[in-house]
Amino acid sequence: MTELEGFIYPRTPTGAASVVPGPPWHYSGEMLTVEYRTDPANVAELLPPQLGLAPDDPGAVALIWAEWQSCSDDFSELLDPVRSQYKEVFLVVRCTYEGQVYSRAAYIWVDKDFALARGLFQGYPKKMGDIWMTRPVTIGKAGPRLAVGGRFGATVSTWGRRIADARFTITGTSETAGFVNSHPMVHTRQMPSIESNGEDSLDELVTMRGYDADLGPIYSGDAELDIFDTPTEELHRLEPIEVIGGYYRQVGNSVAGGTTLWAGANPRAGKSQTNERAD
Amino acid sequence: MTELEGFIYPRTPTGAASVVPGPPWHYSGEMLTVEYRTDPANVAELLPPQLGLAPDDPGAVALIWAEWQSCSDDFSELLDPVRSQYKEVFLVVRCTYEGQVYSRAAYIWVDKDFALARGLFQGYPKKMGDIWMTRPVTIGKAGPRLAVGGRFGATVSTWGRRIADARFTITGTSETAGFVNSHPMVHTRQMPSIESNGEDSLDELVTMRGYDADLGPIYSGDAELDIFDTPTEELHRLEPIEVIGGYYRQVGNSVAGGTTLWAGANPRAGKSQTNERAD
Amino acid sequence: MTELEGFIYPRTPTGAASVVPGPPWHYSGEMLTVEYRTDPANVAELLPPQLGLAPDDPGAVALIWAEWQSCSDDFSELLDPVRSQYKEVFLVVRCTYEGQVYSRAAYIWVDKDFALARGLFQGYPKKMGDIWMTRPVTIGKAGPRLAVGGRFGATVSTWGRRIADARFTITGTSETAGFVNSHPMVHTRQMPSIESNGEDSLDELVTMRGYDADLGPIYSGDAELDIFDTPTEELHRLEPIEVIGGYYRQVGNSVAGGTTLWAGANPRAGKSQTNERAD
Amino acid sequence: MTELEGFIYPRTPTGAASVVPGPPWHYSGEMLTVEYRTDPANVAELLPPQLGLAPDDPGAVALIWAEWQSCSDDFSELLDPVRSQYKEVFLVVRCTYEGQVYSRAAYIWVDKDFALARGLFQGYPKKMGDIWMTRPVTIGKAGPRLAVGGRFGATVSTWGRRIADARFTITGTSETAGFVNSHPMVHTRQMPSIESNGEDSLDELVTMRGYDADLGPIYSGDAELDIFDTPTEELHRLEPIEVIGGYYRQVGNSVAGGTTLWAGANPRAGKSQTNERAD
Repeated sequence: MTELEGFIYPRTPTGAASVVPGPPWHYSGEMLTVEYRTDPANVAELLPPQLGLAPDDPGAVALIWAEWQSCSDDFSELLDPVRSQYKEVFLVVRCTYEGQVYSRAAYIWVDKDFALARGLFQGYPKKMGDIWMTRPVTIGKAGPRLAVGGRFGATVSTWGRRIADARFTITGTSETAGFVNSHPMVHTRQMPSIESNGEDSLDELVTMRGYDADLGPIYSGDAELDIFDTPTEELHRLEPIEVIGGYYRQVGNSVAGGTTLWAGANPRAGKSQTNERAD
Repeated sequence: MTELEGFIYPRTPTGAASVVPGPPWHYSGEMLTVEYRTDPANVAELLPPQLGLAPDDPGAVALIWAEWQSCSDDFSELLDPVRSQYKEVFLVVRCTYEGQVYSRAAYIWVDKDFALARGLFQGYPKKMGDIWMTRPVTIGKAGPRLAVGGRFGATVSTWGRRIADARFTITGTSETAGFVNSHPMVHTRQMPSIESNGEDSLDELVTMRGYDADLGPIYSGDAELDIFDTPTEELHRLEPIEVIGGYYRQVGNSVAGGTTLWAGANPRAGKSQTNERAD
Repeated sequence: MTELEGFIYPRTPTGAASVVPGPPWHYSGEMLTVEYRTDPANVAELLPPQLGLAPDDPGAVALIWAEWQSCSDDFSELLDPVRSQYKEVFLVVRCTYEGQVYSRAAYIWVDKDFALARGLFQGYPKKMGDIWMTRPVTIGKAGPRLAVGGRFGATVSTWGRRIADARFTITGTSETAGFVNSHPMVHTRQMPSIESNGEDSLDELVTMRGYDADLGPIYSGDAELDIFDTPTEELHRLEPIEVIGGYYRQVGNSVAGGTTLWAGANPRAGKSQTNERAD
Repeated sequence: MTELEGFIYPRTPTGAASVVPGPPWHYSGEMLTVEYRTDPANVAELLPPQLGLAPDDPGAVALIWAEWQSCSDDFSELLDPVRSQYKEVFLVVRCTYEGQVYSRAAYIWVDKDFALARGLFQGYPKKMGDIWMTRPVTIGKAGPRLAVGGRFGATVSTWGRRIADARFTITGTSETAGFVNSHPMVHTRQMPSIESNGEDSLDELVTMRGYDADLGPIYSGDAELDIFDTPTEELHRLEPIEVIGGYYRQVGNSVAGGTTLWAGANPRAGKSQTNERAD
């Protein structure tokens, strides 16, 4: 049989049917960040056993909206923009692993399947959502300017329920776009055994960093955030005590691969069908 | 009873439930225009009896993609961007009415109901579609620059079928963004009688012009266009013989009202229920 | 020029591009009705000047969910089911016109454009929404049976916000499926003048009745209803004081035309361009 | 730290935010199956190295549409039907593993994220698509009866392009609903290493079988199938030579777990960060 093509899934004769082509991937987009503090216990309860709280300001988290155009290394998706454009929202916390501080997306929603699959590969626990953010404009009245006073709204809904709404008003520029999402990411990649017996076939901690970052100026300002209690989310458990600030920035970068920090063994590896098959 | 509020529909106690607030409306967006020539007979067959072909180049038409942020005069939708952002594609022809040349959107698709209703008010025969266009970027690799060589794709689908795909490559700048969509619009507003007897309760020709136009530089270039034969559209009847060119421009403008060029009488006006009610 | 084909819009060379074919239209579907009482003032404030409250139980209203398969008279849409299937939710009140009691859909949401346009023709003030209702099943565990104890949920969201949620539990069968939606409908068809000057070019009261009704057995039971206060709806103003009951029924019928009860004249009819055109 | 809850992802404080609750899962739905023959080489090229062609009729495949209501073991999703209802289309082939014949979904599309994630757990390579199938009705004119002559359409689109359309007409009943999808499934669960170096962290062959099957009568008949050549799919490579037949059936079943037939070791297991971290 022929060698199958493809990176994530499915692996197929030509690779054309793959949910998303393999890396490297390139991104150009806009990010709207709202940093706030919650009770550190709300961050602690999210972390798997190997991870600890950040030593400083452990309750500082960020809810980040992003609108992206993305593509694989042949750039072909750019001309079929339905396969290139997507939006996402992610709740980022900080944590430590073996003494190093990392950022971590505890919750994340996207609106395209290629983004969801690319995320699962990187350990982002992506679900689908309905996401919108105001775009800045340079022309006409129907949009904020990237200047003092420019006002933005950002929303995310799942299953027809608003889960978060934010408003951001530019008050100036800044040297940094916040501190919460400033570290390499540490994510979990897990897949339960098909036996559904409490074991995981895949259990890893991974870290990834982008490259070729191309960063626009940073606009900072005041932010307001509402997080709603909905039955299918737990975002509202990270109840805001105090908003730290908001940031808007245009961002470009590329992603190729990462590093496995820790991996558990697949309990089923090396066992043959004869031993394992349950009738 | 209280006076009902609202402009188009429904008219309600507070107006909050209106499908879209009333005018004026403000728009900031991007337009990608592909001008081409088709057989003038394909334009003629689209026109209602009161309209004639343009005297010059009657077969010149334009397929235009636009991505908008829009709002009413209180600008509130900008902070709830799901109610502000939409995309549209429209096929524009030229025609004449009483000796004057007008532009006319013969076919048009949008992806939000507020845009559809606002369009019906203005005589745009809006249907829903799935519309995407490449965005220019200034940051990163995942998008064209607004410069020579910048490449764009634009697509529209209805009922899960692609109806048109375009590709555009910037070759320079231009003084004009084409000529087909350069005239005031002339549109038809019709509503058949509820009796479904061949008469129209509403039958008008209307014209509208925007105001406070704020126009960005015009990028011109080469364009390719594919229009597909699908059972629920007639766009493919305007088969391209020759592409004239492509244009990209950022646009801002406002719309308040227009002028009725011609209106037929409602055959039912002035008749009471006793005379008209069929059992 | 050729005669244009089509019923609502657009009118085109072949009619294939019409947003929906003309009547008659045929429907087969399921309806879940929750009848409840609100303060009659909440109904009164919805009614246009020509309509009065129902003489008995004027505060009785119904929120109705429906899941339809529909088609035109050539039945072709049934084989392209994306153009046949849709869901809707409508808030029905009762009212009187010239001494006769009618039902009236004050608010209504659908999820397909052909349903929206067909509704506008009939005077239903349709907006788009995200609508779901539990289906009864005869096989397997994942659904209620049409029998005592069968439990249903029904939801509607707009702009990513839940506007209403209902739960219904069958307690028996019934001779009637409620009384609120039991009269011919009276609806308003209005279109403001393009001049946006407060006048309406189209202003009618119309009534419609289906024919060839094919009705399944009626299952009645207990219902719970939550209506949420959202900024883009006014449904919550019809605050439930008391739920009357719930009903589930499979329904088939056809719709061809109706009767104009009253029509105002188009102020612009008969005026020529020269008189009316504002520069 | 607290023990995290959840089965697939994410694992969270309460489990409420999980993309889908863990098994068992219950399903009630309808399946429309079109069986056809393609060149066996088109099946062979799809299979990973461990799998071989079926010994008999190796080119027989099935394209299956299904519309489901599904839920977890607390049945709560049934009352929030947006989280219960979904549609899917899957292309099934037969194959052999260690002498046993299995069915295998080579391609599959769904329209909800909970179905996608549940599928990935079971090794179904699920992508999102736009899927529609005619529903049978017992009331009214707008739908086929489950009887001779009943006609159904079924479609699937991705990225706004139709990838397959089928038509099915009932000619009678049958003892079987085809033979292609009649075996336990064998699926592949793979996840490439985060290092993107050609290795897989997860590489398994798994098999699953449902239980508590509740099956309705089988309607068989004539089928037509069109598969379109699109750039993001490879379904068209399984070009139909001959349609075998079509089947419609209502189906209920439950799914709890399966068996790992083969599992490769995670190359990263047991290696620490110090050895593996690339800067």
